[in-house]
Amino acid sequence: MTRKALYDQILSKKTYLCVGLDTDPTKIPVHLQKHPDGIFEFNKAIIDATLDHCVSYKINTAFYEALGSKGWEIMERTFAHIPATHLKIADAKRGDIGNTSSQYAKAFFETMKADAITVAPYMGEDSIRPFLEYEDKWTIVLGLTSNKGSRDFELQQSGNKMLYEKVIETVSGWGTEENLMFVVGATQAEEFTNIRKISPRHFYLVPGVGAQGGSLKDISEKAMTNDCGILVNASRAIIYASEKEDFAVEAAAIAKQYQYEMAGYL
Amino acid sequence: MTRKALYDQILSKKTYLCVGLDTDPTKIPVHLQKHPDGIFEFNKAIIDATLDHCVSYKINTAFYEALGSKGWEIMERTFAHIPATHLKIADAKRGDIGNTSSQYAKAFFETMKADAITVAPYMGEDSIRPFLEYEDKWTIVLGLTSNKGSRDFELQQSGNKMLYEKVIETVSGWGTEENLMFVVGATQAEEFTNIRKISPRHFYLVPGVGAQGGSLKDISEKAMTNDCGILVNASRAIIYASEKEDFAVEAAAIAKQYQYEMAGYL
Repeated sequence: MTRKALYDQILSKKTYLCVGLDTDPTKIPVHLQKHPDGIFEFNKAIIDATLDHCVSYKINTAFYEALGSKGWEIMERTFAHIPATHLKIADAKRGDIGNTSSQYAKAFFETMKADAITVAPYMGEDSIRPFLEYEDKWTIVLGLTSNKGSRDFELQQSGNKMLYEKVIETVSGWGTEENLMFVVGATQAEEFTNIRKISPRHFYLVPGVGAQGGSLKDISEKAMTNDCGILVNASRAIIYASEKEDFAVEAAAIAKQYQYEMAGYL
Repeated sequence: MTRKALYDQILSKKTYLCVGLDTDPTKIPVHLQKHPDGIFEFNKAIIDATLDHCVSYKINTAFYEALGSKGWEIMERTFAHIPATHLKIADAKRGDIGNTSSQYAKAFFETMKADAITVAPYMGEDSIRPFLEYEDKWTIVLGLTSNKGSRDFELQQSGNKMLYEKVIETVSGWGTEENLMFVVGATQAEEFTNIRKISPRHFYLVPGVGAQGGSLKDISEKAMTNDCGILVNASRAIIYASEKEDFAVEAAAIAKQYQYEMAGYL
């Protein structure tokens, strides 16, 4: 998906919401816990109910890998169920030496047919390049994450900058504003103005709104570009809005609330 | 597997070799490329032939994920085929916020039944802790990797140290010498003496010997502890020793050469 196609979706739907499918078999409604294909049925119902309120879905690979090869197969079917209008993100945090990253790129861009993948920057350029070589695909590199552990290395000094600043600045030179995004956590609102100075035009994937406590208003005011420039993810707040059979209706209601608020900022 | 059990294996076999199963379907012998279960058959033959010359197998998850859910299932069967005498490493380079890393730990330590997993440190403590909570399992954190990209961030200044030094020093405080190892690339031999000063006792998983050009002699002299303290991985040099039907025999011959050289350093 191109940047223009993504922005067209954002404009037409008045939303920059990404729905995170961190589907935990112990947290889905009881009637689906008993269903032989309950996790896929849950994802399918969430996708079908929220389509009009979001522009993207993010699959957190960990929750599927925990189920083994069956989980990997559910992940494949879930990606296949998301329509081409929506950006399909594999939240996989991969990254390895060049010949191995090429295999990860193949896994997610070719076999899984995702549009985007999250990548960890620690191992440097040759660990990221193989992802950037795919046309119309997005590489989303960890910049400043939403968790407490961001203080351990990301927010430590690296020369005259913080490590995450050095990462965003350096990695920006490896891709373009058409194929490279950064993960910036919504809980890091005090850094957003600074981050926009380093990368004025790149899209950010912003997790941390909802269960993790980040403010949608704050990050929207500080991080938007003239073509939006942010995708805000909510996972638990949407998909676990209700524990009952009405889970998809309730998920749609929460997604619609986000959309309503987002329309005001666009 | 405990540290003592690992060292007992090293002593009794006179080897600290780890065989890396980076199995690429386009590189296995032609007769197995045509076999319906060729990748598993290849892995099985390599394992059976090299058992006596190594103490560990490392499965590079990327090569299996590139094949989709079928690849994940081959990975499961391959792990199951490795006997309990050998340390089973999932070379997965995972790491995410706490609740997600818990799912990765479950995926590899419970579902996949690996003994160890490689983890990326960028996201800090809560991304690594969930792995360390498992008894008799090993968390192998990226320290200084073998690739050229290590210069981009790992070898950059972070305060009065280099980033990789800060990572090894900080992460050492989160685990023990019984459940935490570091990845240190064999191509970084000039740093080994320094690294041993920062973490005098931790085991290192050392890739980069063989196809990547690192020297076994050099790293063995600089990095060994009184209970060995290093696992040296070779992947392509062993598993692709021959392109023909004799591939397992040739793989064993190369593994035996490593073992012979290692016995001299022990």
